[in-house]
Amino acid sequence: ASAEALAAAEARQLRLTKPAGSLGRLEEIGNRLAAIADACPPPLPARAVIGLFAGDHGVCAQGVSPWPQEVTVQMALNIASGGAAINAIARQVGAEVWVTDVGVAAEVPEHPGIRARNVRRGTRDFTVEPALTRDEARAALEVGIEAANEAIDAGADVLLTGEMGIGNTTPASALIAVFSRLHVTTVTGRGAGADDDMLTRKVRVIDDALTLHRPDPADPLGVLAAVGGLEHAALAGFILGAAARRIPVIIDGVIAASAACVAAGFDESVTGYLIAGHAGVEPGIKAALTWLDLQPLVDLDLRLGEGTGAALALPTVQAAARILSEMATFDSAGVAEG
Amino acid sequence: ASAEALAAAEARQLRLTKPAGSLGRLEEIGNRLAAIADACPPPLPARAVIGLFAGDHGVCAQGVSPWPQEVTVQMALNIASGGAAINAIARQVGAEVWVTDVGVAAEVPEHPGIRARNVRRGTRDFTVEPALTRDEARAALEVGIEAANEAIDAGADVLLTGEMGIGNTTPASALIAVFSRLHVTTVTGRGAGADDDMLTRKVRVIDDALTLHRPDPADPLGVLAAVGGLEHAALAGFILGAAARRIPVIIDGVIAASAACVAAGFDESVTGYLIAGHAGVEPGIKAALTWLDLQPLVDLDLRLGEGTGAALALPTVQAAARILSEMATFDSAGVAEG
Repeated sequence: ASAEALAAAEARQLRLTKPAGSLGRLEEIGNRLAAIADACPPPLPARAVIGLFAGDHGVCAQGVSPWPQEVTVQMALNIASGGAAINAIARQVGAEVWVTDVGVAAEVPEHPGIRARNVRRGTRDFTVEPALTRDEARAALEVGIEAANEAIDAGADVLLTGEMGIGNTTPASALIAVFSRLHVTTVTGRGAGADDDMLTRKVRVIDDALTLHRPDPADPLGVLAAVGGLEHAALAGFILGAAARRIPVIIDGVIAASAACVAAGFDESVTGYLIAGHAGVEPGIKAALTWLDLQPLVDLDLRLGEGTGAALALPTVQAAARILSEMATFDSAGVAEG
Repeated sequence: ASAEALAAAEARQLRLTKPAGSLGRLEEIGNRLAAIADACPPPLPARAVIGLFAGDHGVCAQGVSPWPQEVTVQMALNIASGGAAINAIARQVGAEVWVTDVGVAAEVPEHPGIRARNVRRGTRDFTVEPALTRDEARAALEVGIEAANEAIDAGADVLLTGEMGIGNTTPASALIAVFSRLHVTTVTGRGAGADDDMLTRKVRVIDDALTLHRPDPADPLGVLAAVGGLEHAALAGFILGAAARRIPVIIDGVIAASAACVAAGFDESVTGYLIAGHAGVEPGIKAALTWLDLQPLVDLDLRLGEGTGAALALPTVQAAARILSEMATFDSAGVAEG
């Protein structure tokens, strides 16, 4: 990200026909877009692709989700057919949803709306053995990098994170615990509906796995292999791929936040390309965003995932760019200053 | 608002392919839209008009704003020409901005983008005498009702509040103090940049005016006349006009919140047609929304006005409607339930 474009954007905000600082978070996001694009005003991030990665989790054998694993493939097909929440929101905000099977356990029927890039039919149960081999984790990362590049080559100028995977808040909390160095109880929540007993079990399962594998945050590929998920790895790659092309990424939710921690583990500078779309209910989000030094834009009490919080933040991010490029200045509009 | 459609929407949310309650505030807004339209699913509020009313304030003679009064007409022209923040945001979210001169002090040049409905060239200084006569206040209310009806007749199915008027947070805080019965210090803030001295002066000015006029919240027209503003009155009419036609209104900011208090003073049932778009920095907003039993959707630290917070909330409101109308159900998508 460019310090020169950032300074130019900060200076330009003061010349626009509004009281200094009166657009709050919108000014901050506009300035960040300028830094990312190395241009002031920044280009409008008009063509948005939501990279939605689906995967399953061996740790579901430990009873960490109230939903049966078959829901992952059913929901992947529902999303590919346009019937899920993320589709309704994406249509409203003008974003495309690209669904990728990177690790669904069931055989996914061929579908024009699903990119078939299955690395492995679900992770192993990380309470017993590492979730993935290093090669599998790397392959899933590369699926994400490839998706980012394909989307950008197809014209996308802003990427959003999405995911689907029954049980995937458990590896997300594990990843966040490793990178944030916070206690598992602090970063673990109810996901898509765990009750008190299930939450207690989730915490114990993650705690046991971290004791078993002792993942080292200085080795992010090793962390992914030990306690990650295939969609978490793909999202980390998606973020790394976008940052390498200087394209902003709107993240949301605990899965995306954990993937951002992994991506920042590989390359700290990627955080400059991230915009946190949504606060979310999961406690791990706050821990991860604090570690990444990001402030979420909105908080609508969502706990669905799929990329819903990122998609809802998109118009605000786009408006932030328009503020810098389309507003009149005090001079040009002949408006007196206070 | 319809209790039957509300119950149907609440029941429908539970059949959609998502964990129960996982869309948080979006579900609440969707249900409210169903109640407003008396239909489940509710129609998509696709065509949005921002009713932006401009006016000036005699109380500016008391030094309650750092901005010169001529900025009101300059900014009205800037908005009509598309150069203000609200225009940039409105273009992003696909909303039209209708600017009405209901009470600008300066002569407003004829402009195709400004509806000329000036009731009076600015209010009187309410520290000395009532801001308006009852007839003037009624005429300004009617300007707002007329604008709502014209917008709806032209096809608008959702209205948003906007305003421009140097000094207009001072009458807004006065109105909110009257209706919320809270102390003036609790509901008065810095507006578009008051420093500590100016804030102290604002509080004293409002306090003195309330002591002088003793406005009675049971007589909302009298309150408007005593300490209101022409754009506040027009916005109250705009809200009443929308509610009478069963059209939702997204409000934001302290001016809109004060106008909503006035509208609710005339007819308590209008609150069922309101959606609070943005929390805002002004303390009066929270007081007013609490009194109106509304929860703001987003909080982006805006303190600009113009309707910016309402416009930024529009895509979320529209997405909430799409959730109810476009999402698949567990049965239709063949997705197992948790």
